[in-house]
Amino acid sequence: MTAVSGSSQVGRAKLADVAKLAGVSVGTASKALSGSGRMRPETRQRVLAAVETLDFRPNQHAQSLHTGRSWTVGLMTTDGIGRFSTPVLLGAEDALGAGKISVLLCDTRGDTIREQHHLRNLMDRRVDGIIVTGRRTDPRPPLTGIEPIPTVYALSPSTDPDDMSVVSDDRSGAQLAVEHLLATGRTRIAHVTGPAHHAAARDRAQHTVDLLERSSLELSTGRVHFGEWSEAWGRRAADAVLRTAPDTDAFFCGNDQIARGVADSLRETGVDVPGRVAVVGYDNWDVMALACRPPLTTIDTALAEIGRQAALRLLDAIGGKPEPGVRSVPCRLVVRESS
Amino acid sequence: MTAVSGSSQVGRAKLADVAKLAGVSVGTASKALSGSGRMRPETRQRVLAAVETLDFRPNQHAQSLHTGRSWTVGLMTTDGIGRFSTPVLLGAEDALGAGKISVLLCDTRGDTIREQHHLRNLMDRRVDGIIVTGRRTDPRPPLTGIEPIPTVYALSPSTDPDDMSVVSDDRSGAQLAVEHLLATGRTRIAHVTGPAHHAAARDRAQHTVDLLERSSLELSTGRVHFGEWSEAWGRRAADAVLRTAPDTDAFFCGNDQIARGVADSLRETGVDVPGRVAVVGYDNWDVMALACRPPLTTIDTALAEIGRQAALRLLDAIGGKPEPGVRSVPCRLVVRESS
Repeated sequence: MTAVSGSSQVGRAKLADVAKLAGVSVGTASKALSGSGRMRPETRQRVLAAVETLDFRPNQHAQSLHTGRSWTVGLMTTDGIGRFSTPVLLGAEDALGAGKISVLLCDTRGDTIREQHHLRNLMDRRVDGIIVTGRRTDPRPPLTGIEPIPTVYALSPSTDPDDMSVVSDDRSGAQLAVEHLLATGRTRIAHVTGPAHHAAARDRAQHTVDLLERSSLELSTGRVHFGEWSEAWGRRAADAVLRTAPDTDAFFCGNDQIARGVADSLRETGVDVPGRVAVVGYDNWDVMALACRPPLTTIDTALAEIGRQAALRLLDAIGGKPEPGVRSVPCRLVVRESS
Repeated sequence: MTAVSGSSQVGRAKLADVAKLAGVSVGTASKALSGSGRMRPETRQRVLAAVETLDFRPNQHAQSLHTGRSWTVGLMTTDGIGRFSTPVLLGAEDALGAGKISVLLCDTRGDTIREQHHLRNLMDRRVDGIIVTGRRTDPRPPLTGIEPIPTVYALSPSTDPDDMSVVSDDRSGAQLAVEHLLATGRTRIAHVTGPAHHAAARDRAQHTVDLLERSSLELSTGRVHFGEWSEAWGRRAADAVLRTAPDTDAFFCGNDQIARGVADSLRETGVDVPGRVAVVGYDNWDVMALACRPPLTTIDTALAEIGRQAALRLLDAIGGKPEPGVRSVPCRLVVRESS
């Protein structure tokens, strides 16, 4: 298997050979291979068997020169393929890989020089389009210095509203959390979240305040608790909130790590969760949400669906039907034992 | 930027145009672009400026037909790009992307049909080689049904010892942990780990027992505690160990989640860590190790280095210098406050 190089072009089987061996027309053989067109499963099976027997491989590079398409899409991540970009990547790879599109992976690590290096490489390879994803929900400047090519921004939208972006609907996330807490009888809700300079923290906080106002309520401590995306901050904030507003009956947290810190602190100071206080997180990061005691009710941000929709929009654009603008993917409430 | 399709070949600048504008020979221009050969930085800069001005792009597909190389490597993961394969992928991407090699990402999700689909696609695209990675350290069967092509298995080795594999050295990991505990005066060491049918759990446990024997010691409870890779198992096991062997003065755990569960359980039952009992984890998974109270001493498995070495071995093999066999990358001890 290993290390024997070389793939000689000599004597390669042609599609006509496959069709002949399978006893079908070249058109049928082509359809069987591309997965398009209807045919009996037995027919497709015969074609695939012939492909095996003859070791037939269409030459993609020759095809690309012929069609002007490379059937390749660049997937560019800016954050080292972290916890957020991974599900987005997988959703996109799933939607693209189902057909014959391959994914060229580029990791820019937030470095502009690496980004330009990768972009040039993607252009050299004549990718049909690019998906750009990152870890933050803050808008990012569009790619520059490249040929015009269909590009979709996933999770981190482009600052240009005429670009194609697919983002998580933070408003729906906050709404699901607040409505769930109100529906279960909580009215003294505290909001603990990440740094105020992150859009994810600011947006979720603003939506939370707005939604409470619509029910003539305000936050139990009268303000949003901005801090870090960490368990340690959750623990500290829980103590501070209960000192300021001991009648707080729910914590809605900007992510699952903060929520886990809050739940740990409450448990360790003898506050019953969810008996006296409910805790709701954000992200549905399974490692955090399931290991939390009790397991966390949280907001699922549908990251894989964001990747999938970004891929489908990119395919539409490559096919000549671009739909510019930002599209939001709604969140989903996952109820567990903490609320 | 967005959605304007098409990349016409008409009027494309040629390498000769670049050389002319930069005032150098075509050979020098070529060397400047490939990064090979020595030249003054100013010369390279002039060539790159000319490339910018003329928007010159070598056509990779034409080059591939000419050279028989695609300058592309397939990176195949079997576990949905999880916590373990991600750093391996990044290490490999880093080593490959520094040159002009691009990475085609394939995610098989442990599905044989998906694996065959992706393999066929990689063959069609004439990749120069393949890196296969997974989540488990158990050996996996080699890829089958493909043309002979350089292949390196990273993290999950091939069952064929003549294949090229790069793995984590579990023996060095166990040794670092045990020697650290012995050096800090611990002699009553318990070992809590994952399922016995995982090589990672079995191997680390066996090495631990062997290493203690060399110091005429045995495990504090007289046996290995196999279970799950979870915090909940760590909490339950800590209770069980201290009931069986109350004089246990250290826990060496098979991963960081188990270690975090152990540390939580000890803290909540009033056992001082590290005062009375030391806790050492495995993996150096930052989210777990840093959020643990106290932060975890743990074994770093050098996953990115495994990816990097797999990439370098693959490049050697593509270059005609394959070195078959399994190579182990040593672990690293990271001392924090739990020991």
